[in-house]
Amino acid sequence: MKTRVFVTLKNGVLDPQGKAIHHAIESLGFSGVHDVRAGRLIEIEHEPGLSTSDLETMCSKLLANMVIENFEIEQAA
Amino acid sequence: MKTRVFVTLKNGVLDPQGKAIHHAIESLGFSGVHDVRAGRLIEIEHEPGLSTSDLETMCSKLLANMVIENFEIEQAA
Repeated sequence: MKTRVFVTLKNGVLDPQGKAIHHAIESLGFSGVHDVRAGRLIEIEHEPGLSTSDLETMCSKLLANMVIENFEIEQAA
Repeated sequence: MKTRVFVTLKNGVLDPQGKAIHHAIESLGFSGVHDVRAGRLIEIEHEPGLSTSDLETMCSKLLANMVIENFEIEQAA
């Protein structure tokens, strides 16, 4: 079983990586991009027995820094 | 309009970051995790006029290293 975890910066937290990507996109000649935010994606391959609350514990203890980041859990096939 | 880009390592490419996360999950006391792969998530806020092919060009030229990485584009609301 595969689960995807998305870790994103909370609103209001400065994102220099996203800003750099935004500038790079503009210097490639694309206009119409308002904002870019960079985050992390973690794909976890696990047994079906692993519960969502276990996954949430992993996220809040290890994968995300809850002071500045949010996480989102998506069950894949 | 918001688009999410997922950048993941291709199969067979070594992923030390994912391995480190895997070990850390096990040392937290969770068993049942077989594999962890780390990737990047880029959220792009843009005008509705920006086409999918523009987004694909951004990905292959800038956001992903096509030699070792794949990308996936997901249109959000």
